[in-house]
Parts: sequence; C-alpha cells; structure tokens
Amino acid sequence: MRTGMWLVGARGSVAVTSLVGALAVRDGLAEPTGCVTELPALRSPAVPTFADLVFGGHDISVLRLVKKAEALAAGGVLPLPLVELVAGELAEMETQVLTVPTGPTQHDVADRVAADLTAFRDAHRLDELVVVNVSSTEALATPHPAHADLTALRAALQRPDPVLPNSSLFAYAAFTAGCGYVEFTPSTGPRLPALAELAEQAGAVYAGCDGKTGQTLLKSVLAPMFAMRHLQVQSWSGINLLGGGDGANLVEPGANAAKVASKQRVLAEILGYQPEGHNRIDYVADIGDLKTAWDLVTFSGFLGTRMRMEFSWHGCDSALAAPLVLDLVRLTAAAHAAGGRGPVPELGFFFKDPLGSGSHALADQWEQLRRLVAGWGDADAGVA
Amino acid sequence: MRTGMWLVGARGSVAVTSLVGALAVRDGLAEPTGCVTELPALRSPAVPTFADLVFGGHDISVLRLVKKAEALAAGGVLPLPLVELVAGELAEMETQVLTVPTGPTQHDVADRVAADLTAFRDAHRLDELVVVNVSSTEALATPHPAHADLTALRAALQRPDPVLPNSSLFAYAAFTAGCGYVEFTPSTGPRLPALAELAEQAGAVYAGCDGKTGQTLLKSVLAPMFAMRHLQVQSWSGINLLGGGDGANLVEPGANAAKVASKQRVLAEILGYQPEGHNRIDYVADIGDLKTAWDLVTFSGFLGTRMRMEFSWHGCDSALAAPLVLDLVRLTAAAHAAGGRGPVPELGFFFKDPLGSGSHALADQWEQLRRLVAGWGDADAGVA
Amino acid sequence: MRTGMWLVGARGSVAVTSLVGALAVRDGLAEPTGCVTELPALRSPAVPTFADLVFGGHDISVLRLVKKAEALAAGGVLPLPLVELVAGELAEMETQVLTVPTGPTQHDVADRVAADLTAFRDAHRLDELVVVNVSSTEALATPHPAHADLTALRAALQRPDPVLPNSSLFAYAAFTAGCGYVEFTPSTGPRLPALAELAEQAGAVYAGCDGKTGQTLLKSVLAPMFAMRHLQVQSWSGINLLGGGDGANLVEPGANAAKVASKQRVLAEILGYQPEGHNRIDYVADIGDLKTAWDLVTFSGFLGTRMRMEFSWHGCDSALAAPLVLDLVRLTAAAHAAGGRGPVPELGFFFKDPLGSGSHALADQWEQLRRLVAGWGDADAGVA
Amino acid sequence: MRTGMWLVGARGSVAVTSLVGALAVRDGLAEPTGCVTELPALRSPAVPTFADLVFGGHDISVLRLVKKAEALAAGGVLPLPLVELVAGELAEMETQVLTVPTGPTQHDVADRVAADLTAFRDAHRLDELVVVNVSSTEALATPHPAHADLTALRAALQRPDPVLPNSSLFAYAAFTAGCGYVEFTPSTGPRLPALAELAEQAGAVYAGCDGKTGQTLLKSVLAPMFAMRHLQVQSWSGINLLGGGDGANLVEPGANAAKVASKQRVLAEILGYQPEGHNRIDYVADIGDLKTAWDLVTFSGFLGTRMRMEFSWHGCDSALAAPLVLDLVRLTAAAHAAGGRGPVPELGFFFKDPLGSGSHALADQWEQLRRLVAGWGDADAGVA
Repeated sequence: MRTGMWLVGARGSVAVTSLVGALAVRDGLAEPTGCVTELPALRSPAVPTFADLVFGGHDISVLRLVKKAEALAAGGVLPLPLVELVAGELAEMETQVLTVPTGPTQHDVADRVAADLTAFRDAHRLDELVVVNVSSTEALATPHPAHADLTALRAALQRPDPVLPNSSLFAYAAFTAGCGYVEFTPSTGPRLPALAELAEQAGAVYAGCDGKTGQTLLKSVLAPMFAMRHLQVQSWSGINLLGGGDGANLVEPGANAAKVASKQRVLAEILGYQPEGHNRIDYVADIGDLKTAWDLVTFSGFLGTRMRMEFSWHGCDSALAAPLVLDLVRLTAAAHAAGGRGPVPELGFFFKDPLGSGSHALADQWEQLRRLVAGWGDADAGVA
Repeated sequence: MRTGMWLVGARGSVAVTSLVGALAVRDGLAEPTGCVTELPALRSPAVPTFADLVFGGHDISVLRLVKKAEALAAGGVLPLPLVELVAGELAEMETQVLTVPTGPTQHDVADRVAADLTAFRDAHRLDELVVVNVSSTEALATPHPAHADLTALRAALQRPDPVLPNSSLFAYAAFTAGCGYVEFTPSTGPRLPALAELAEQAGAVYAGCDGKTGQTLLKSVLAPMFAMRHLQVQSWSGINLLGGGDGANLVEPGANAAKVASKQRVLAEILGYQPEGHNRIDYVADIGDLKTAWDLVTFSGFLGTRMRMEFSWHGCDSALAAPLVLDLVRLTAAAHAAGGRGPVPELGFFFKDPLGSGSHALADQWEQLRRLVAGWGDADAGVA
Repeated sequence: MRTGMWLVGARGSVAVTSLVGALAVRDGLAEPTGCVTELPALRSPAVPTFADLVFGGHDISVLRLVKKAEALAAGGVLPLPLVELVAGELAEMETQVLTVPTGPTQHDVADRVAADLTAFRDAHRLDELVVVNVSSTEALATPHPAHADLTALRAALQRPDPVLPNSSLFAYAAFTAGCGYVEFTPSTGPRLPALAELAEQAGAVYAGCDGKTGQTLLKSVLAPMFAMRHLQVQSWSGINLLGGGDGANLVEPGANAAKVASKQRVLAEILGYQPEGHNRIDYVADIGDLKTAWDLVTFSGFLGTRMRMEFSWHGCDSALAAPLVLDLVRLTAAAHAAGGRGPVPELGFFFKDPLGSGSHALADQWEQLRRLVAGWGDADAGVA
Repeated sequence: MRTGMWLVGARGSVAVTSLVGALAVRDGLAEPTGCVTELPALRSPAVPTFADLVFGGHDISVLRLVKKAEALAAGGVLPLPLVELVAGELAEMETQVLTVPTGPTQHDVADRVAADLTAFRDAHRLDELVVVNVSSTEALATPHPAHADLTALRAALQRPDPVLPNSSLFAYAAFTAGCGYVEFTPSTGPRLPALAELAEQAGAVYAGCDGKTGQTLLKSVLAPMFAMRHLQVQSWSGINLLGGGDGANLVEPGANAAKVASKQRVLAEILGYQPEGHNRIDYVADIGDLKTAWDLVTFSGFLGTRMRMEFSWHGCDSALAAPLVLDLVRLTAAAHAAGGRGPVPELGFFFKDPLGSGSHALADQWEQLRRLVAGWGDADAGVA
C-alpha cells in the first residue's frame, strides 16, 4: 500500500528526524526503536511498511534538509554518520518540499494546498495520503461563529479576513483533497465542528492533538498509579526547560498558554479531580533539544500521611516525537484503508489531548490501540 | 461475614498502623485512603467490611500496642489525636496478641500455632480467618529436600533440626488450621511445593509475596511505559535509604539480599530483557519511617538517542503497607468464601513478587483484580 | 546589655518562631541550632545574650501569639510540647504587640511609631533597641523624587499622599527614634538615600535586605565553586514551590517580582557574568511551610564538555529565618554599641541582597562577619 | 621554564584528555576552561605556560593515543574535530610513551623507571620534570614495616617479594631521579614515611591525593555552608553510577574500598563530627564517562525542624580531571623552582584527601592556593 506522508513544517526538527529515521530504518541502517507499530503486539499486514512511504511537505523555511539534519547531528539528536549515509536521498527530496501557498483569501490558499496534495498523490500513484502537522505551535485561536458550521465556514473563507488558524486551514485542505490529517502539535487543527462535518462528507480520517512525549506521558502512567492505589494527589507542579526551535517559539505567550493548558487536562481526567499546581515552560537556549522537565507530586495516604515524589526527565523531544509521527501516518492510512471515517479515538495513545472520548491513562489507551490493530487482522499479542 | 485478621508480627509498625487505621476507619474517624477495596471499581458486598474484622496475632516483642502507636505518632506515621481516640480499644486487644509458641520440634510449634488460631476462630465465631505475615524479613532460606513434598515435610518437622523458615512454619500452621495466609514480606512463606500441596488438601487460599509499596510500584508503571513506547531501557539503578525497624533489619546481609532480589525481577518480567543496574538498600536511622528511594533510568530512543530519567520517592512504608494489608485480608477472605483454593494470582496487584503466573505491570494486575471482584458480583466499574 | 527586639509583623510565622525559639533557648529547653552567633568562631561577650532580649512589635493582624504558635506546630514548624511550655510567656507578651498606628499623613504615622518605640525603650530601660521587619513582602516601590533627599522627604511626608512604602516608613521611624533597623524582607526598607542620610544624622545602624535562607544560600556556595574551578555556567534555572503565608502573598505579582529580582543578582555578582535562566515562584498551598526549590545548572568544562547538576531543597523557611533574625538583632545591637553608624556591610552574610559593597560568596561573607565580631574582642577561632 | 609532564597511565582517559587539551589550548584551538591557573587571581609568570610543556609517560596498555582520543570523542568527552586537528602531534608522541619496565626486584624496576625519567629530562633539556599518576586505582595497600623507614625500604626493595604498591614505586623512582610527583588517584603513592624521607633528601616536591572532581567537590562547599549556618547535618548518603574505565576498575572491591574511604573523610573534617550515611559506587557500563552521582542530606535546624536537600551531578570525570592535572604539573614545577621541598599542602584545593594539614573546605583551600601563587609574585587578585 503506497502511502504518502505530507509534512506541514517539513524542514523542522521533528520532520527531518522523521525523514532521516524513516530512510535509515527502511534501509536497515537503524533499529525502529520508538516505533510502536514495530512491537509484536501491534504489527499488522494492514499497516504500510517503511518501504511503502513516500515523503513530501510544505514549509515556510528554505533551510535545506541536509543542513537541518547536520544541525540536528551537531545538537546530538541524530548520529552524524547516519546523516551522511542518507544525505543523497535527502537532497533528492528537496523538490518535494514546497513553499506554503498564498492567496487573496483563505479559500484560495486551501485550494492551492489541496492542489499540491492531489498532484503529489497522482505523481506517486499513492493509495493513501496523510498530512501531518509538525510545524510550530500556534497561539490559541480566536473563536469565530463560522467554526461551528461547514456552510458558514465555506462562505467565510471566501472573504479577505482570515477565519481559520493555519493548522485548521491545512486540515480543511487535506479533507477537501480526501487526505487524512494528524495534528501533532497543540494547535487547533481539525478540532472544529465545521471540519468534523467536512471530514465526514469527504470520508477522511483524522487524529490528534499534541504528541505525548514527555511530562504528560509520565503523568499518564503515574496518575493512574495513584488512582489505582487510592492515594490522594494533593498537588502536582512542574517546570519544563527547553531550548531548540520549539522552546524559542514558546517564549511567545500565546503558544505557551496553548501548550500549558493541554498539559493540565490529563490529571483531572485520570484522577477525577484537579490537584493544585501549575506547569511552567521556560526557554533556555543552552539546553538545546535535550529538554529537562521536573515535577513534584505531593500526596496523602492512609490516615493522612503526607508523602512526595519528584522526577526529572531529560528527553530529546524530536527523537521521541519522530517515530510516533511515522507510526501515526502508517496507522491513519491503515484506518482509512480499513474503512474508517472521521476521528480515530483509538489513536489517543499518542496524544496529550486526544480527540474523541477515551481514557487518558496510557495502559487503557494501549489496549484500545491494540484492539484497533487486531481488528485489522493478524497482529501478535503481548507487549514484549 | 465475621473475619479474623491474625497478624504475625502484631506489635510491629505495619501491624499497628493497620490496627489503628482499621479502628479509625470503622468508626468514621478517618477516610479509607489507600484502601483499594474502597474504590468504586472494587467495592463488592462479597468483601467483609471494616466492622466485620476481628484482630489477633503473634509477636516475639512485648512492647504494648499503645506504646508502639505512640512511637509511630512521634515519627509522623500516625496522627497523635487518632492514637488517643483508639487507645482504649488497643489496650483491650493486648490479650489477643500472643507470644510465639516454642517446642522441641517445629511440628510442636506448628501445632501450638494452629491451636491458637482455632481457639481464636471459635472464641469469636469467625466465618473466615486469614493469617498475614508482617514480621521482619528473614534471610534467604536454606533449601531442604523436604520442601518439595508434603509427606517428607511432615516427617522432617518431627525431627529436632529446623527444616522450615519461620514464615513457612506459620503458613504450614495456618493451612493446617484451615486458615488463609498472606505473605506480605519477601520471606519464603507459602512458596514451597509441600505447602502448596497442603493448602490444596486443606482447602486454604493464600497470596504473596512482598507488598509493593515504593520503588517497585513505580517500576510497575514506568517499565510498561517504556515497553509500550518501544524505548530501550539501558540501565536502571537505584538506592533505598530507610530507617525504622525494617531498615535496621535489612542491615543484616541475608535479609538485604532477599529484598534486593525481589526488587530486580519486575524489570525483566515486564521488559522481556534485564537492563543493567543494581538496587541498593542502606540503613539510615535518621530517615526514620519516611524512606527515600532514588532511581536513575537511562534509555535509548529513535536512532539511538540517549535519554535519562530520575526520580525520588519519599514514602512512608508503614502508611503505604497498612491499607494494603487490610485489603488483602478482606479480599483473601472473600476469595475463600467464594470457593477459592490455593494461590490467588489475581492479588498480584499488591506484590513485588506475585505468586502464580501473571503480569507484573500494574495496569494488567489492576484489570485482573477488577475481574476477580466483579466475578463475586455487584462491583461498580471504572477507577474513579 | 538589655536589648529590645521590635518585630514589624510580630504575629507572623517568622516572628512567632523567633519568639518561641528565643524563650526556649534562653530557658535551656532547646539548642541554639541555626544561630550563628552561638558558633565558637562568632561568640563574643560584646553580643547580647538570649537573656538580655526583650520583645515587642507591631502587627495589623490580631491573631493571638499562642494561636499562631499552635498553628505553626500543626504545620510541623514548631514542636507542640515546646509551644505548651512557653505558652504562658507568649500570653504575657500580647500587650507588647501593638496595632500599627494610622494618621492623616505618613509623618503622623511615623511619629506614632517612634513614640511606641521610645515608650518601649523607656519602660524596659533598654540599652539598645533594634527594629526588624519580618512582615509580608511589599510590591516593588514606586520611585519618588523625595527618596533622594532627607529634607525633601520630610516635607513630602507632611502631605496627604503616601511617599514611602511601609517598610521604609518603619525604617524612618526607627532612625528618628535612634533605633537600629534590619530589613529581613525584599521590601525597600532603608535602601533610600534620604534614609541613609537620616541614619547618619541619628547615629543609627541598619542591615539588610532579604534573609538568605534557601536557593540563594545554595547559590552563594555553588556559584563560587564553579568560579574557583574555572567552569563556565551556561544556565541556572529554578522554581520555588511554597505554601504558607509568604507563598500566598507572593501570588501577588508585584511582590513576586521583587522577590525574583533579588534572587537573580547573586549569580552575576559572583560569576562576573549573567548565565541564562529564570527563577520562578509558585504558590502551592498543600506544601505549607516546608517549601521545595529545584534548580538546574548547566555548565561547560574543559574543551567544551557539557555537564549538569540539579538539586532539590526541602527547607522550612520560618525555621531557617528565625535564628538569623535573632542573630541579626544581637549583632546589630552590638555593632551600635561598638560605635557603628549607618549600614553594617559585614552582615551581608545573612542577606540575598546585601546593603553596602561586599562579596555575595558565602565564604567571603563569613570571613567579613568573623572579623567584625573579632574586632569587638574575645571571639574564638574556627567554624567548628 | 621547560617543564616535563610524565604521565603514569599515559594511554588512559584522563591522560589523553589532558594531552589533547594541552595541545589545543597551546595552539589557541580551545579555551582553558577548567584550568584554574588561567584564572586572573592565580595567573603568575612563575607558572610554566602551555607552550613550556613536554609530554611523556609509561603505560601497560599499547592502545595508540589517537585511537584512545577517538574513543573519547565517540563517548562525548572530546570534540571529534579537535581530535582530528591534533592527531598528527599525538602520533609523534607515541614514541614518548614507554612500556612499564619490569625486573627481578622492585629495586630494578625503580632503577629503570628513574633511568627513563632522566633520559627524558636530558633529551628535552627540561628545567623541571613532574610525574603524575593517572593510572587505575589500586586496591588498599598491605602495610609493611619497611614503609616507615627509608633505609629499611631500600633493603626490602632488593628482595624478590614486592614491598611497595605500584603508585609508591613510581613515587620512589621519581624522587630518586629528583622529579616531582603528583598522586591524582586514591592509591598510596607518596603517602609513606619512607618516601617523605626520600623526597626530603632528594629535594623533591609532591602533592596528592585523589583529584576532587565530583561529589567530594560539592561536599567541600556544601558542608561548610551547613557549618557556617550552624545547621546540624544528620545524614549524608549517596551513590555514584559510573561507566568507563575507572568504573570498571572499581568493580574490584579493593579499589572500591579505597575510593569510598577517601570520599567519607571530608565531612568529618569540615563539620567536626561524622554524620550517618554511606557512599556507594556502582559500575553501569551504559553510563559511560558521564557519571551520575546522587546525594541525600538530612539536617535539622532551629528547634529541631527536619529538612532535606538532594542533588544529582552529571559530570564527565575525564573532562573535570584533565585541566586539574595540567594545573598540578604546572604548579608543582613552579613550587619546586621556587625552592619548595616535600609536600605542597597549598595544593589541597585539588584533592579529596589532601596531603599535609589543611582545611577540606574549598574556599579555605582556594585562599591557601592563592597565597602560594601570590608568594611567587605578580598574580592578580579576585576570582573573576
């Protein structure tokens, strides 16, 4: 099943890490560590292989892919020898990363994006095409009445004032072109009633939002532990120190607010109550891509005894995100091929703020995902 | 269902915390925080209530229960006002904590222990009686051929040389008297083929071993997280600093070895491979009952990127263990009343080194436990 | 040498911890742990003893001292038995804690404060009287031209609009009455040219600002370590989580800003350059008085090798501050008695933001303090 | 002043990091970060420059220097481009690293070592020659009566049974040849009365033992902080996780014991009492050269309030040690040139277990070092 992976933000850290990794794994130069679809419990002939993938994308940046890969190698995210081995193929991909179209109205922009997608699908005779947003986090979007209704939205897009945030405009274009869409950032993307309506009409699938790679991943296993042991979480506070492109962007207060809000929901969802505490994000250029998060949890146990835990997480966001991006494209394509329409809540395993109903606890999300894949036939059982 | 809870080590920290807590919760003086059988998802009319419980036990110590409770209050484990409220009842319980019987052979000792249990059951007209070992951790037991076979064991017990470690002798006596047995420590307890045979014959149920309250509890949610995300754990090293009675006992190298071994199994079981690293235990009197554990996990992700997490856990072992002891007695009694025989693997949720087959991952263990209780009828669904 | 200790904020946590502790140490009920003037290297007959101290103060709160002490005991700051032992004396002190005077102009208020101080000094036939501000942190003060000049200030105080922040008004009153003044909070206090002029005229001594009790204390030994080893600190980021009265007050953004600014200066002063990074303060009610601070330091060494350290500090601010407050009153009184006038820079050892020139490195500050005391005669040598 | 630096263990991690770094700094390819003699406060014309240094050494390994440097680059200790720039010079140095001489008696071995040193000094017309031991840590040495007396030692060395550990044999040879000696490991080295006597006779200088680069460096600033604030340290416990060559060697229990003992002395020396607690060392191959140390300190303050701090240190031992090795050679040569004889206690700043009397507190050690260098003339003042 030839599957296109269209990256919005194709010249960014996550995208280039995904590209280099996909080439390396396909060619047997690296293990698929971090790719959950390669676990025995989730392997399925219904899921496209690495050899099935074809890459393209949009970006406002013009930094060459090889240059970005070399910068990631200098920052410790990618091994330099691997970058050298795939440099030739990266160079060939350059022509498949287009600049972001512009136009007098958002309708025009969407049309041109859809045309880019259709041309890519035709040129490569793809069975499936999935758009995945890995560009910078947007500020929280301004609500607009046209978000609630597809007809109103179509009318509003024809007018000169922008009505959709960029992420949602890409989702609109993807659905219009019959493509799948994955919102990997905290941006709005497909989370608007009008877009849900469009996806339904177009028979498109989508998943999101906001890849779960660090503190929230830990919360999604630690909070259930407290709940299952009937321990009362009193407060959960934390700070994220990160450099790199994503960090710089989060200095912008709107983007920071979007990110922080999406991190706080998980606790209330899992525990059934909201403990005290905040989650801060600070940009520290020196830290680069290997971000450090620290959390303090205070809790009470039997007869009110006060206890604490704290943890530090030194994780490389791009390295944690990239294999999930590859998983999501492959699983979204398979879900569509299996007849899926609209949101795929079983992909909540991958997200901080999962679309559709469903648990935020990682083990429950894993079980949902396992069943989804098993429903396509032939997957093995068990994690290991 | 009147249920006896017989504590081996009844004057120790865990036992007295359980006693004070059970009285306080029964009388509405405290919430049942930390008692998992009080979660909506695990509530069942088949489980005895706090009001159903009757307490007795054995101990080599003669420290009065109230004195021990006051010492625990001074160490911050129990609230002093609560101890004062239940002091009268603790004083009445004094006569129900017997000294450990002695005799010329282990057979004689077992006989006298069984007689104590039977007398207690008769005096209180108990429907169920469960023995739970919360005494100090023993050194790793010396293997003996008679451990493999009940007939050989019975013969060997008649001879003057001891053949069973104390914990196993108590399990032997409990099964002989038709009681349930819970091994809450890392000691051998019922984990011998001869005792499994006896339990089967006697129609007794049992569960164990080694209550999962701190570092291993965290491992049982964090290791599955790494496994589910296909991240490769390279090393997992840690240290436990603890004062209090349990800590002092662990200075004894044999007991330390027993404890450390039981902590290391969980990773290999969950991950499918054994990462590098050791787990140290050190006694630091000043730390008292609020032990501190620190773990460092190094792992690699996509394309070999090296990452780390570390955590500190400041937990009060007695406060974490006591509600689980109460849960285990109540659940073991219910399992027996429901017709159970032999080990109850669905209670693996509570243990570092669960008896019988079954996952070490907490979420899987929770699901097994939930189904066990649901099988008894009427439990609600969902954690919260 | 009978010495008065006049507490602005006398009913707050730091003040009441100081009072209870001073009584307990005086009566031999507790060791003077945390009091640096009791170290052999700093003992001097020139310093008033605990028996020499007489207490009074102002506060806007009317919470009784005993009630506050009991609340501190409940929060783990004070031992309850000690509070009970000194409860009688605390009750007798009630009449010596006055409400804060009011009046149509700040001049009137200062007059009444000075009158309260003079009356207290006369009533107790005090040789020295030191006012110490341990009230809540103020917002950063609004600059005013009259701050620069005593004559202008005196004129401005007669007008109805307030010109001085409260802390500075108390310093004004103290100097007017010939008393010493210690600014233990980050508030402005005596840090205005007009007040320096007044202290000089009045022959008063003063010290400040902002007691160094936690993260900054650690910075003042760790930053010199990096400097002395010629290691390059790249970033120093941190967060403070605190409950209690001080924490609640810091939710107020102005006070938070004042506190954070005073914490950031120390690094640049010691290292000679300002590393990247911020220091956050968050209020978490559940944490109470035992605050938790976490810092991450990234640094580079030989040939650019990147390294990190992180630390967590779980300190009780009131318990750390109270003995320093007692030290400061005793040392300020001695400095005045020894003929001092104006700021006492040798007391920089106690402060985040020391008045007068001088190093921020703790070891240098210690040496300055040791020489000050040695200059008064008879102190022993050596820390231990 | 042409100065020879003779490395015992010249093909190990610390030695090769020193070599690469010395070449790079000399040629202006890198900053002298981590070299304390390059701080303004310690600069002196009496200290040989990087251009003055000439390198040689002994090793039992035959791994080529360039290969070792490349391995260090792969492990993140050295920047690969730098290794490539100095590879030619490293290759030229190969002939100056000799195999360790052997012989029928230790006397013969010492003679041949001394002959190697003399030949090197003559060949390069050196003004000063300093031997520095950076080889693997030895097991704790077996005491021998001949250690106490030079005449007895000389006799014993002629007999076939070894009497000196290797480190001491090298010190013996160095002194015999009139060279200085620096013991950078915890091994015995010059710490024997017979060797002190020999150094005195030969007019040789020496310094040691055990470079202070991680946990102990932190102890030497944190313990004084607790002492200066009159806080009572109750316990100080820690663990060191390290891979790399030094880590593997420490699996050997004798070497581990030597290392741990030297780490524990510093607290008692600074605090005046020995707090509870142990320091563990574990080998974790995966951690490589970037070792992780974790410490927990429990302390009590005013009125017995219990507080804690914990810290993690992620430091690269070779990168921390190498600039100190260069400093020590330069300072030891200068001390000898300035007429020094015997131990140089002012170099205690560099060591966990300083030779000669003197404080273990870093700030005091810094001041001693500063005065030593100032005594040679022309150093600037101030750290920054």
